[in-house]
Amino acid sequence: MNLTLVIGNKNYSTWSLRPWLLLKAFNIHFEEVSVSLKDDGLRDRLLEFSPTARVPVLKERDLVVWDSLAICEYISDVHLEGAGWPHTPIDRARARAITCEMHTGFNALRGAMPMNIRAKRQVNITPEVAQDIARIDEIWSAHHHSGWLFESFGITDCFYAPVAFRFETYGIELSEAARQYQHRLLAHPALKSWVDDALKETEIVDADEAGEPR
Amino acid sequence: MNLTLVIGNKNYSTWSLRPWLLLKAFNIHFEEVSVSLKDDGLRDRLLEFSPTARVPVLKERDLVVWDSLAICEYISDVHLEGAGWPHTPIDRARARAITCEMHTGFNALRGAMPMNIRAKRQVNITPEVAQDIARIDEIWSAHHHSGWLFESFGITDCFYAPVAFRFETYGIELSEAARQYQHRLLAHPALKSWVDDALKETEIVDADEAGEPR
Repeated sequence: MNLTLVIGNKNYSTWSLRPWLLLKAFNIHFEEVSVSLKDDGLRDRLLEFSPTARVPVLKERDLVVWDSLAICEYISDVHLEGAGWPHTPIDRARARAITCEMHTGFNALRGAMPMNIRAKRQVNITPEVAQDIARIDEIWSAHHHSGWLFESFGITDCFYAPVAFRFETYGIELSEAARQYQHRLLAHPALKSWVDDALKETEIVDADEAGEPR
Repeated sequence: MNLTLVIGNKNYSTWSLRPWLLLKAFNIHFEEVSVSLKDDGLRDRLLEFSPTARVPVLKERDLVVWDSLAICEYISDVHLEGAGWPHTPIDRARARAITCEMHTGFNALRGAMPMNIRAKRQVNITPEVAQDIARIDEIWSAHHHSGWLFESFGITDCFYAPVAFRFETYGIELSEAARQYQHRLLAHPALKSWVDDALKETEIVDADEAGEPR
């Protein structure tokens, strides 16, 4: 196998985290390439890897797959015999709906609370951000008795993992059931190793440094 | 079968069009329910159908699937034995990457040029919009010799169909190869029937009435 995942840094790059976590959690061997997300020359730097000038990008031989969800689908399809999603068509549909909701939604939350693993901050919670938090609380509270969102750890969990960090950074309080899920995520060994790497980084991305210290 | 697709109107609702087109193109029988997209009470009206207060939503017995991409994946998975996507894993990955790119991207184009089938307009083309147009031209120009984006009509074509209307409405010029693909899309019988329905509608959504007459 000759699988390469191109990612941004680990402190801020939520989209990079999602497929990285899927690969790590399922013990799929891959090479990791990091690209600086500094503004200066960013678009040209990214266009070397991806036609959309965005990370993450997965490469396997001649194939280039861009977009976090398309990468996760490919990994599940080709390397996991479909195990990235639940077994039943009904649960698979629900898992994809929740995953797609994150893929396009929660813009208020994403804008107000960038992932910034090493920081503790407070930000203004607008009604739109509060609505996004409430919706995530609702999704997390309905987690499966496996402890994950569905019968076993999968792509949907990977998609919500960055939010677990965000809620830590910005001190967001959740319902008890949602908090249990958040802690389950944060205790995942692959996610802990991502944090270890993030804490060693020194790159500052100004656009993602939101809020006041707390 | 007892399949219901909840959509917005047909003149403006791009996200509704995508799964509707997939169902029609593959001759899957479904019931269509339209919800007015007028501002007044919109969120409450939509929450009756979907936890995200958005259309489209697919219902089949007890299952509710929201998000256009998740709906298309479900239709392909359960009703088409996977035929919504190309046959080979490599092409499937590429098709999903291009589809996911539309699912989250092209925000400049989407903001500046709302789908408005019955209108002919002109809008200011900012550099960001021009970049989006160029990227779509690139994707369309690389279409398969089948005439569709891949070996046969599928989910990826459904995802780009609303853009074919946008380029008509706002008079956007394309390269010859991209224009061929656009015309192929616009000639699809299912898409023509969508247009027929759109032209009969009278609802005006002010937020989507962009540009000046041309």
